[in-house]
Amino acid sequence: MNNDGNASQARTGGRTARTGRTGVWFVGARGSVATTAVAGCAAVTAGLYPPTGMVTETPPFDGTGLPSLPSLVFGGHDTAHTPLAKRAEHLTEAGVLPHGLAPAVRAELQAADEEIRLGGPLAGDTRGDDELIADFAADLTSFRVRNALARVVVVNVSSTEPLPEPDAVRLPPSSLYAAAALRADCPYVNFTPSTGLRAPVLTGAADGLPHAGRDGKTGQTLLRAALAPMFVQRALEVRAWSGTNLLGGGDGAALAHPGAAAAKNAGKERVLTETLGHTPEGEVHIDDVPALGDWKTAWDHVAFEGFLGSRMILQTIWQGCDSALAAPLVLDLARLVARAHEAGLSGPLPELGFYFKDPDAGPSGLSEQFAELLSFADRLREAQ
Amino acid sequence: MNNDGNASQARTGGRTARTGRTGVWFVGARGSVATTAVAGCAAVTAGLYPPTGMVTETPPFDGTGLPSLPSLVFGGHDTAHTPLAKRAEHLTEAGVLPHGLAPAVRAELQAADEEIRLGGPLAGDTRGDDELIADFAADLTSFRVRNALARVVVVNVSSTEPLPEPDAVRLPPSSLYAAAALRADCPYVNFTPSTGLRAPVLTGAADGLPHAGRDGKTGQTLLRAALAPMFVQRALEVRAWSGTNLLGGGDGAALAHPGAAAAKNAGKERVLTETLGHTPEGEVHIDDVPALGDWKTAWDHVAFEGFLGSRMILQTIWQGCDSALAAPLVLDLARLVARAHEAGLSGPLPELGFYFKDPDAGPSGLSEQFAELLSFADRLREAQ
Amino acid sequence: MNNDGNASQARTGGRTARTGRTGVWFVGARGSVATTAVAGCAAVTAGLYPPTGMVTETPPFDGTGLPSLPSLVFGGHDTAHTPLAKRAEHLTEAGVLPHGLAPAVRAELQAADEEIRLGGPLAGDTRGDDELIADFAADLTSFRVRNALARVVVVNVSSTEPLPEPDAVRLPPSSLYAAAALRADCPYVNFTPSTGLRAPVLTGAADGLPHAGRDGKTGQTLLRAALAPMFVQRALEVRAWSGTNLLGGGDGAALAHPGAAAAKNAGKERVLTETLGHTPEGEVHIDDVPALGDWKTAWDHVAFEGFLGSRMILQTIWQGCDSALAAPLVLDLARLVARAHEAGLSGPLPELGFYFKDPDAGPSGLSEQFAELLSFADRLREAQ
Amino acid sequence: MNNDGNASQARTGGRTARTGRTGVWFVGARGSVATTAVAGCAAVTAGLYPPTGMVTETPPFDGTGLPSLPSLVFGGHDTAHTPLAKRAEHLTEAGVLPHGLAPAVRAELQAADEEIRLGGPLAGDTRGDDELIADFAADLTSFRVRNALARVVVVNVSSTEPLPEPDAVRLPPSSLYAAAALRADCPYVNFTPSTGLRAPVLTGAADGLPHAGRDGKTGQTLLRAALAPMFVQRALEVRAWSGTNLLGGGDGAALAHPGAAAAKNAGKERVLTETLGHTPEGEVHIDDVPALGDWKTAWDHVAFEGFLGSRMILQTIWQGCDSALAAPLVLDLARLVARAHEAGLSGPLPELGFYFKDPDAGPSGLSEQFAELLSFADRLREAQ
Repeated sequence: MNNDGNASQARTGGRTARTGRTGVWFVGARGSVATTAVAGCAAVTAGLYPPTGMVTETPPFDGTGLPSLPSLVFGGHDTAHTPLAKRAEHLTEAGVLPHGLAPAVRAELQAADEEIRLGGPLAGDTRGDDELIADFAADLTSFRVRNALARVVVVNVSSTEPLPEPDAVRLPPSSLYAAAALRADCPYVNFTPSTGLRAPVLTGAADGLPHAGRDGKTGQTLLRAALAPMFVQRALEVRAWSGTNLLGGGDGAALAHPGAAAAKNAGKERVLTETLGHTPEGEVHIDDVPALGDWKTAWDHVAFEGFLGSRMILQTIWQGCDSALAAPLVLDLARLVARAHEAGLSGPLPELGFYFKDPDAGPSGLSEQFAELLSFADRLREAQ
Repeated sequence: MNNDGNASQARTGGRTARTGRTGVWFVGARGSVATTAVAGCAAVTAGLYPPTGMVTETPPFDGTGLPSLPSLVFGGHDTAHTPLAKRAEHLTEAGVLPHGLAPAVRAELQAADEEIRLGGPLAGDTRGDDELIADFAADLTSFRVRNALARVVVVNVSSTEPLPEPDAVRLPPSSLYAAAALRADCPYVNFTPSTGLRAPVLTGAADGLPHAGRDGKTGQTLLRAALAPMFVQRALEVRAWSGTNLLGGGDGAALAHPGAAAAKNAGKERVLTETLGHTPEGEVHIDDVPALGDWKTAWDHVAFEGFLGSRMILQTIWQGCDSALAAPLVLDLARLVARAHEAGLSGPLPELGFYFKDPDAGPSGLSEQFAELLSFADRLREAQ
Repeated sequence: MNNDGNASQARTGGRTARTGRTGVWFVGARGSVATTAVAGCAAVTAGLYPPTGMVTETPPFDGTGLPSLPSLVFGGHDTAHTPLAKRAEHLTEAGVLPHGLAPAVRAELQAADEEIRLGGPLAGDTRGDDELIADFAADLTSFRVRNALARVVVVNVSSTEPLPEPDAVRLPPSSLYAAAALRADCPYVNFTPSTGLRAPVLTGAADGLPHAGRDGKTGQTLLRAALAPMFVQRALEVRAWSGTNLLGGGDGAALAHPGAAAAKNAGKERVLTETLGHTPEGEVHIDDVPALGDWKTAWDHVAFEGFLGSRMILQTIWQGCDSALAAPLVLDLARLVARAHEAGLSGPLPELGFYFKDPDAGPSGLSEQFAELLSFADRLREAQ
Repeated sequence: MNNDGNASQARTGGRTARTGRTGVWFVGARGSVATTAVAGCAAVTAGLYPPTGMVTETPPFDGTGLPSLPSLVFGGHDTAHTPLAKRAEHLTEAGVLPHGLAPAVRAELQAADEEIRLGGPLAGDTRGDDELIADFAADLTSFRVRNALARVVVVNVSSTEPLPEPDAVRLPPSSLYAAAALRADCPYVNFTPSTGLRAPVLTGAADGLPHAGRDGKTGQTLLRAALAPMFVQRALEVRAWSGTNLLGGGDGAALAHPGAAAAKNAGKERVLTETLGHTPEGEVHIDDVPALGDWKTAWDHVAFEGFLGSRMILQTIWQGCDSALAAPLVLDLARLVARAHEAGLSGPLPELGFYFKDPDAGPSGLSEQFAELLSFADRLREAQ
């Protein structure tokens, strides 16, 4: 175990800037993804684990001036109260975090814990939308000032909200947090399918800040983005693409609400429709199976037609740990959007579509999205 | 059923040249792939089926001057004697060709049948390598002259040969046919893992002709070429990639010979090693299961590691009809290589790596290979 | 093709009685299952195919006095009008019936077709429940008399009904047909999850006739009945059992109605609850995927716990043709229930639980159910 | 955590005898299975975990007089030297043993460790077969006397040996240990596919002692024994049954030797041949994939034929922890065979076929084997 600064600096090499610290503010800061991201950032910084799963730690990102992992300072909002160290223990028992990690990064978890503020609206909360936005923005500003941060990126990793009803009186919570980010002049990332910046009243409001979203692509949709282009490239006709997801963590429970599932599925369908040029038959199910904990299983069944009407089938089974898939991408996004802010970029960043199910724009195939991401890296490098 | 020339011309649109006829000479002309290609070309020409699975019939190939499907004239070598019409009946019973197709294209099958010549070396054949090459080349020249063909593309679709022994006295049959193609000035495509042009004595001999190979990518390796880049792009660490193929057609029986399986597996492994940058653990099995006939099942199991050492698994199951997957690609290749010849291109065509497990050069990821193919289409269009 | 009576008698051996003919009356007589049963009975009788899938044609049923296949006479109710010969052509194109079969058994399909009567209630039907029951019963009696049948077994193979609403004014159609069977003194089999005899008003009414049901076990539930006992026998703890069914035939469309799916799923869950002694986590989905036609795919995911809390997983994928699975069971049941009637048995026949998802009584494990079936065969043999 | 004797006695209830202690002597005592069995027995005794996976702890075994778990005393032979406590740590890191268990049962592991003696023949061992047998038997007798044990059951859980060559000069090691068990008057269990008692020279020698074997059924073959009867019961025709096993523990490495794999596969095939009445097409592969550690994945593909020649497919994927599956069965067998010895039974115990791939006799279907096991429990109960 090598924890000294020099070794860490040597390892992250020329990829990172040397000055200033960057805040990462999680909406849902006590959840599995945020806890894994905080613990994982500390573990990689300490040299306990290689940065597997972090695209920004691969050679194409050398010299792009991203904030270094040790320079990230974590905080966030949450309506829960469980201390991060306790959450990390639960995640260890659940097999998400490796044994021995939580004690090794206790100090970093504790530091982040002290920067978590109570979110909202709470049950019985009498504050109106504007008041909530103002309170959240004040938390952000205070975090930045108190820690002398160059900037703070707000990253939504909270549970998926139900789709907002058309005639809702107030903004959905994810949009309140997004509005607070804008008010506090913070770049924004929405890693969930919740509304966030896409509330009609926020249209255009984020033009002056870099932002990215929506809905991180960590399993079934990642696979679909890799596979669907194959059918198109080979001129094979996809007739039906069906899928079932089993998962048991907080996300499983949240998605058991039909409204939340609808939000999630909208993103899942998009990659097929855009890549194939039509929407094939088939449904997507998301089942809450508490016995599986944070481990997610996704089964996909693709019925396609080949030469002379021959009927063929591809099936895939993906068994992954949701938080371990999401956390490195969340760190990637925080670094990329922070650097974009530093480089003076603003508005949506469609080059980050590689990370999302429902991106703002850009190609739908994974390889094309990856090529866009590499171009973005070049752009950041040139902005040095 | 619409078989008149105008309709057909309308359908194949601007993709094809209008003048001259092109010969397609199959080594293994009585096999499943060749029979399906001949029957399928006729069926698509007649408007009985859409050209599903033929990449050269998609919009990016408009205006590239490829020989039209109706302009293709088929012949070939084989050591078997079953008439093509009979083979087509067998393939119908086996579920490879749709019912009703074989009778509808009987005339075209009969025409191709009359252009099939006896291959070799036969059991007890006393001809030496040179004599065989000369005989095969004479068959090719006679085919071209007799049918007044602009050119003849030789395409190897015969059963996989065992790996040649290092001290073998004579050339493997696939190389005899390849040498005959060169001698008769014919472009050459090797759709199998057999040696073909890659015999040391043939090195450089094909520099004056366009050629492409080796080993068509129709199932498990196609999938691997689509999926392996995903792991690299996401910085996930592939630990082991294991696979089993079940198939029962002639190919299954041929590959039950350990030597032939070794030839096949070499190609399968290459995509992983080149894409991942290392060779993961895991084996590939090819089992002869006659009960499955021409239907191939490939199971793949990928053990990979994510953030903080988390262990995850992807499994894929591909159930396809081997001949229906191969035949449209074989037609694609014959057209592309014929057009390359017309355009004056020569030597290996690495832009066709999209079609092969073991290409002459070029990228290993499917999307990158597809991009190369599209560039090749542009090059052909400009050569008009 | 050998269709003479002697050969057929030799083949079906000592399993069958020699005298009298037995009527089989299908509710849903123009559906896939009924069409396949009629065509298949003729094909097996003619020696065109072996009786694969018919349990009653295996040695344990020798000498049990079952009506022979050639002695079965088919008729039925349906609200559709497509002739059986036409339906058989459709099933051939869909890959359910083998090519060549429909023409070979055209006479038998035609004979059955002439015995199909219009079912109900039709749209705008003004007949009350009693009138409908009387009309249906008259059809049954007329069928028996006109064909001089020893008896007529009514078998419900129509599309799954939605679950009846608690305050429904009239009986569901399946119960109208069941009541008609009772009124016409006909034994009754319900191969669907519809209500049939289980309407409260019919309780006890069938005590004088043998009957069996409910909901034929042809795929996922068959597999569950074979596998669930393994976990119990090995003292392994099933935590979650999840499943998804994809199918596209008429059944797929019918089950897309949530009410019908609820009816179907109730039966599916029962085998787990009864075998495991508790209801594990997990849901069952039934998706209508028209591209799959009559071919059904069922994926099951079982999360179980072993020694020292180890977490393990079993997954199964079943790809079968629904009608080909159901038809031989339907013929089995018609023969068994007819013979039970001849032998003077009456009331529910729990020994037939082997065939059903939701049987009247008896064990839930498949092997135990099979043992019960063999005892029933002995009982029939002794009743000779 | 409750470790007092009363609680433990209450929990194991009436299933166990109260007096005398029983020795369990593992051949391969430092391997994964033995380590898991020793640690697990202690953990269940201490109330740390329920006895999941131990069939002998279920109600049907109440009152059968089996030795209680706390009364078992462990020892064994091994040629390796790693202390059990160290092995338990490795198994914890590998995810086989739960975190926290190894330290909690350190005393019991240490006690077993002190009873492990050096096995053989070692490299360069000059002892002949008789001398080795005598040495091993002396170790057994010493263990029994020193610990004042009522009896000692020898259980082979060592790595699979290559199939012995027909003209081998000496006995395979597994047979040396088996002969030693006989000489020391110890009942014997062979949980591996190695020769053990089945060496021709040992035929009949074990008639005076109860013994059971061969080759524990923990994964793919367990599943086959549960599923193959379903096809027979339903009169479905299995055409091909193919399988691939991936595993990376010591067993994976041992089975990478073709000889050992051949030994293992012989057992796997037997269940199909005996149940189906014929040997279907298809092969079984066992691949060493070190990345998977002790976690085993078995994929099976069953091609079967139904009514009217319809082609259907069942696939299964089993993902389990080999040692966690084997250890409770090994404890079961030690207890059952010890009790059989106490009850005066001798010779092969075919009623234990439930546990084995290649049993001495008895039915091949899992449910029939389970019924035999329950009868055996009754027999033991009556022998009280």
